[in-house]
Amino acid sequence: MPAPNHRRIPGATVARLPVYQRILLELVRGGTTTVSSEQLAEMAGVNASKVRKDLSFLGSFGTRGSGYDPEYLLSQIDRELGLDGDWPIAIVGMGNLGRALANSPGFSSRGFRVAGLFDVEPSLVGRRVRGMCIHQLDDFEEMASSDPPRIGVIATPGATAQDVADRMVKAGVGSVLNFAPRVLTVPPHVLLRYVDLSIELQVMSFYLSRTDRRGSAEVSSPLPHVVGLGPSAPA
Amino acid sequence: MPAPNHRRIPGATVARLPVYQRILLELVRGGTTTVSSEQLAEMAGVNASKVRKDLSFLGSFGTRGSGYDPEYLLSQIDRELGLDGDWPIAIVGMGNLGRALANSPGFSSRGFRVAGLFDVEPSLVGRRVRGMCIHQLDDFEEMASSDPPRIGVIATPGATAQDVADRMVKAGVGSVLNFAPRVLTVPPHVLLRYVDLSIELQVMSFYLSRTDRRGSAEVSSPLPHVVGLGPSAPA
Repeated sequence: MPAPNHRRIPGATVARLPVYQRILLELVRGGTTTVSSEQLAEMAGVNASKVRKDLSFLGSFGTRGSGYDPEYLLSQIDRELGLDGDWPIAIVGMGNLGRALANSPGFSSRGFRVAGLFDVEPSLVGRRVRGMCIHQLDDFEEMASSDPPRIGVIATPGATAQDVADRMVKAGVGSVLNFAPRVLTVPPHVLLRYVDLSIELQVMSFYLSRTDRRGSAEVSSPLPHVVGLGPSAPA
Repeated sequence: MPAPNHRRIPGATVARLPVYQRILLELVRGGTTTVSSEQLAEMAGVNASKVRKDLSFLGSFGTRGSGYDPEYLLSQIDRELGLDGDWPIAIVGMGNLGRALANSPGFSSRGFRVAGLFDVEPSLVGRRVRGMCIHQLDDFEEMASSDPPRIGVIATPGATAQDVADRMVKAGVGSVLNFAPRVLTVPPHVLLRYVDLSIELQVMSFYLSRTDRRGSAEVSSPLPHVVGLGPSAPA
């Protein structure tokens, strides 16, 4: 089934859709049957006009006066994000981070599925994480040919990340999510994104240091309270 | 020392500064002595005019023709981000995620310092991570009074995250970075931000599902290649 709207959605909107999705999911679970753009805006830490503009890319919902139906909006966002699909994920690097990712609910819900775990470390190979066996990295190609991962997640140290990316690309993985602290090179047809766990710390130190410099009273209004969940958007 | 510019910097710019910072750090390490806004733009996955606008908030650098001096620009960004400060961090929840965070280079560099590790699980208390002892959560207040953490990081399961946040706030922690999959409530003077490790997956599935629907040839140009490292900005 095609998406309702094939207009080009701005990257910043794409990055906010999962934020709205999280909020709507909580509202639906809590039994809320209608939500205004102002409420969504406050919970997402953006302004209401931005929420309305973002949601307008999904189609028309008739918000004036009546608000949005969280369940319907959720289904539209899920469809837009491709969460009605099947997204097998291969994670390479089963240290603390790889294990945390394999265990995180977001990696095994709403279309995502951890399909393979890999490491080079002999003491880790054969151990189980969330019921799945950790495989040798040398078995990556074989696994990729039987259940091809759509997304390859790199959770190795920086030094080995490029080798892992090369291996993923060679095995036909079309998108790479890199948690390793290293800039990677992949062919143009491969989607590459980075996650840096410490970037939010720096955003916080920015706001905190401004508070320090100016005194908290002066900064209390520009200080963002609840702001975006998760990573940044393209231009 | 005050920042060179006290204009209100847009949240989206704040969120991109750490991205530029990472890139500049790699350039400086590699011996690069000049970089154009176009080069920075390509590496950051944004357009050049956005780079120039973002950097204009830091002051004037005279980019026309000659490009930026990466080392100088880096020092300006570091100062703007408050990375010339001391940011002790307390991490609560020492499962795989908490341990990954404690071990991640970004949590122990450029002003950040892991000052305390806590868990409620008796089998974890007393164990060492990166040379630091894991403390009982009940010792949080005591530790906070001797070496007050500026940033409290929650890496617990969702169910206990609010309790931990309450405890942090009560102990005087002014900012909370929440990795737990739960929306939290804190007083207005506390800076609260969320990190969701799976949001990037959803951004990827968005682009991948569009590729599937339209065929890769048609989508190859809007598909972002290297895009933002890390989490999103406020409005």
